[in-house]
Amino acid sequence: MQRREFMKKTAIAGVALAAGTSLFGAAGKSTITCKGYAAFDESGELKPWKFQRRAVRENDILFEVKATSICHSDIHTELGHWGKQTYPQVPGHEIVGVVTEVGSKVTKFKVGDRVGVGCMVDNVDVPSLQGKSEQYDANTVFTYGQSYKAEPTGISQGGYSDYFVVHEHFAVHLPDDIDFNHAAPLMCAGITTYSPLMKYQIKKGDNVGVAGIGGLGHLAVKIALSKGANVTAFTTTPSKVKDIQSWGAAAVVVSSPDDLAKFRAKFDYVISTIPYEFDMMPYIAMVKPFGNFTVVGMPVNFSQKIQTLALAATKVNFNASLIGDMKETQEMVDYCAKNKIYPEIEIIKADEINAAWKKVVNKEARYRFVIDPKTF
Amino acid sequence: MQRREFMKKTAIAGVALAAGTSLFGAAGKSTITCKGYAAFDESGELKPWKFQRRAVRENDILFEVKATSICHSDIHTELGHWGKQTYPQVPGHEIVGVVTEVGSKVTKFKVGDRVGVGCMVDNVDVPSLQGKSEQYDANTVFTYGQSYKAEPTGISQGGYSDYFVVHEHFAVHLPDDIDFNHAAPLMCAGITTYSPLMKYQIKKGDNVGVAGIGGLGHLAVKIALSKGANVTAFTTTPSKVKDIQSWGAAAVVVSSPDDLAKFRAKFDYVISTIPYEFDMMPYIAMVKPFGNFTVVGMPVNFSQKIQTLALAATKVNFNASLIGDMKETQEMVDYCAKNKIYPEIEIIKADEINAAWKKVVNKEARYRFVIDPKTF
Ligand SMILES: NC(=O)c1ccc[n+]([C@@H]2O[C@H](COP(=O)([O-])OP(=O)(O)OC[C@H]3O[C@@H](n4cnc5c(N)ncnc54)[C@H](OP(=O)(O)O)[C@@H]3O)[C@@H](O)[C@H]2O)c1
Ligand SMILES: NC(=O)c1ccc[n+]([C@@H]2O[C@H](COP(=O)([O-])OP(=O)(O)OC[C@H]3O[C@@H](n4cnc5c(N)ncnc54)[C@H](OP(=O)(O)O)[C@@H]3O)[C@@H](O)[C@H]2O)c1
Ligand SMILES: [Zn+2]
Ligand SMILES: [Zn+2]
Repeated sequence: MQRREFMKKTAIAGVALAAGTSLFGAAGKSTITCKGYAAFDESGELKPWKFQRRAVRENDILFEVKATSICHSDIHTELGHWGKQTYPQVPGHEIVGVVTEVGSKVTKFKVGDRVGVGCMVDNVDVPSLQGKSEQYDANTVFTYGQSYKAEPTGISQGGYSDYFVVHEHFAVHLPDDIDFNHAAPLMCAGITTYSPLMKYQIKKGDNVGVAGIGGLGHLAVKIALSKGANVTAFTTTPSKVKDIQSWGAAAVVVSSPDDLAKFRAKFDYVISTIPYEFDMMPYIAMVKPFGNFTVVGMPVNFSQKIQTLALAATKVNFNASLIGDMKETQEMVDYCAKNKIYPEIEIIKADEINAAWKKVVNKEARYRFVIDPKTF
Repeated sequence: MQRREFMKKTAIAGVALAAGTSLFGAAGKSTITCKGYAAFDESGELKPWKFQRRAVRENDILFEVKATSICHSDIHTELGHWGKQTYPQVPGHEIVGVVTEVGSKVTKFKVGDRVGVGCMVDNVDVPSLQGKSEQYDANTVFTYGQSYKAEPTGISQGGYSDYFVVHEHFAVHLPDDIDFNHAAPLMCAGITTYSPLMKYQIKKGDNVGVAGIGGLGHLAVKIALSKGANVTAFTTTPSKVKDIQSWGAAAVVVSSPDDLAKFRAKFDYVISTIPYEFDMMPYIAMVKPFGNFTVVGMPVNFSQKIQTLALAATKVNFNASLIGDMKETQEMVDYCAKNKIYPEIEIIKADEINAAWKKVVNKEARYRFVIDPKTF
C-alpha cells in the first residue's frame, strides 16, 4: 500500500491528517502517528504520548477510535501485577471506532464500518485458528504490552489513543443500534462475562450469584438477567445496592463471610470478578454440589489460594475463564445490542484517566469509565 | 448392657479377656480396656498406650481388630499439619475385624461378622443422614482426634489398637472373599479413590491419569483399570515403574513439569493423591477442556495455590473429594472383592510403626503398611 493511496483514503473518510497520518519509518515502511496515553513505569501514572503504529498491512484495518474504556486489567498490567512490563506502554483493550483504511486483502470490513476490538489483535497464522479459541493460542498477540515485531515500538500498543490498527480477524462489527460509548466496555467486560455464562448454559430460573459489581460484574448481572436467571449480587459497597436493584437483581448482599454462610449450596452458578486474592471458599460454598464456580477476576501473579478440604465439602467445580473467542465476541455484541444490554458508563477526558484509575481501584467507578478519544 | 453379658459374649466369641475387657469407669459405666499405639505430641513418634474405650451403647458394635493400616492422613494429623491436636491420640482409620459384641438395638451386625470401619464412627442423629453424604455432615464424628463426649478420653481414638467400638451405621460388611489384610486399606484409600472415579463416571476407553502412586494412588490405578480405562500413572519414584506396569497401566511417567507438557489436554480425567502442596497447573493442564481434575491429596492446612490464568487456559473443572459416604463404602468393598482389586501390602508389627511412618513420608511404602494387631 502506497502512502499516497492511504492519504487519499483517510482524506475520503474525513480523517484529520494531523493524527493518524502515515509516515515513512526507519525500515522504509510507512507508520501511523498516534496520540494516546501511556504508562512509563510501574507507578500507575499515565502521561500523554505521541507514538507510531505500523502502517496497514494487507489483512489489517485502521480505525479512528471513537470510544475506549478502562478495564481493571489495564491497571493490573501497568502496575506490574502480572509481570514486568516494557514501557512506554499504551493500555486499553475496549476499543471501538470507524474504519478509515483497509488492507488489500481485507474482506470483512470496508472504510466507514463501525468496529470493535477487545483483548487480541493479531496472530501469525490466522487460518490455523479455525475452530480454536484464539485467546488460548500461543501465537495470539494481546492488545498491549506484548512483544510484537510488526509494531515500531516493539510491543503491542493498546487503545487509549486516537487511532488503532488491527488484523481484521480480531475486529468485530458493531450493530447500528448500540452507540460507541456503550459498545466499548462490551469488548472486554462484556465478552468475559458473556462467555462463561453461555458456556455453563445459564437459563431461565437458574439461581446465579455474581461477586464483585464493577465493570465486569455489572455486565454479568445484566447478561444473566437477560437469560431469565434469578440474580443475586454480592458487593462490598453499600452505595451500589440501589443501582443493582434497579437493573433487576433479585437480591443484593453487602457481603461478609457471615452473610455468605446462609447461601450454602443455594446457587446453580456463581461467577467472581473480584480483582484481588480473597477468601474464595465461602463464595464457592454457595454453589450447589456439582455446580460451577467461575473466576474471571485475575489477582496479582494470577495466584489464588484454595482450601482443598473445604472444596471437597462443596463438591463444586472450580474453574476460570479468559475473555472469549472472536466468534462469540461478535455474537455477544449482537446479543447485547439486540437485548439492550448497555453498560453503565461515565465519560471522561484523557486528562482524567489517572483520577479514574484511582477510582476504579477504590471501587468508585459507576461502572465503566469511557475515555473520549478526541481529548488525547 | 450388663458387664456379665458382655463378658459372656466376648468369651463366646473367643476374645481373650485381658484385652477388650469391660471395666466400670468413673461415671459408673463400663469401659473397655484397649492396647494400642498413640501419638503423645507433634513429634510423629508413636508409643504403646493402654486406654479405655466406651462400653457398647445400644447402636454400637465392638470388634476385635484383625488388621489396621497406615494412611498418610494419620501422619498429617498427628504432626499437626491440619491443626492442633489433643494427645494422647491413637491414629488409624483403615480398620477391619470380627464383631464380638453388639448393642441392644443393633440390626446390621451380629457377633462373628467380619466388619470394616473407615474415617467416620458416629453422628448424634443417624436417621437425619438418610440420603446425605455422612462425611460432609457437621455432626459426623471422624475416627480419631475429634472431640467426642462418648469416649472416656474425650476424643475419638483410632484403629491402631486391638479393639474398636463404633456406631453400627459407620461399619460395613466385609465380603467373604477378601482377607482382612487386603480389606483394611480399602476402608480409606479404597473409598477415597473409588468415590470420585464413580462420581465422574470413568468408563471403558477413558484416558485417566493418576498422580502420586502411594496408598491411594495405586488403588486409583487399579480401580480405574477395572473400569476399562487407559491409565497413565505419574510417579516421582523410578523404582515404582515396574510394579505399576504389572498392574496393567498403559503408561508410567516419572514426572517432571517438562514431561507433563506433552500430555496437554490428553486425559478425560486426572486424580491427584499427592500429599503436599505442589505446582498443580501442569497436572491440571493434562485434562481435556471441560474435563475434571480431582484432588484427594490434602496438603498442610489444606492450602493449595492455583494460577487463575493457567486454569482459564485449560477450561478444566478443578474439584476435590473427601472419602465417600457409607453406602458407597459398602458398594466399594463389595466391588473390590468381586473384581479382585487388592491393595499391595506389607505387614508390620506394632513396634515397626514409627519406621513405617518414615518410609511413607519418604515414598518407600509398597504400597500400604498393614499393622498386625496381635502385636499391640
Ligand atoms: N478473565 C478475563 O478474561 C478478564 C477480563 C477482564 C478483566 N479481568 C479481571 O477481572 C477483574 C475485575 O475487572 P473489572 O474491570 O470488572 O474491575 P472493577 O471494575 O474494578 O470491578 C471489580 C469489583 O470487585 C469488587 N472488589 C472486591 N474486592 C475488591 C478489592 N480488594 N479491590 C477492588 N475491587 C474489589 C468491587 O465491587 P464491589 O464494590 O461490588 O465489591 C469492584 O468494583 C480484574 O482482576 C480484571 O483484571 C479478567
Ligand atoms: N480426600 C480424602 O478423603 C483423603 C483420604 C485419604 C488420604 N488423603 C490424603 O491423600 C494423600 C495421599 O495419601 P496416601 O495415604 O496415599 O499417601 P502415600 O501412600 O504417602 O502416597 C502419596 C504419594 O504421593 C507421591 N508424592 C509426591 N510428592 C510427594 C511428597 N512431597 N511427599 C510424599 N509423597 C509425594 C508419592 O508417590 P510417587 O512415589 O508415585 O511420586 C507418594 O507415594 C495424603 O495427603 C492424605 O492425607 C485424603
Ligand atoms: Zn479487560
Ligand atoms: Zn486415610
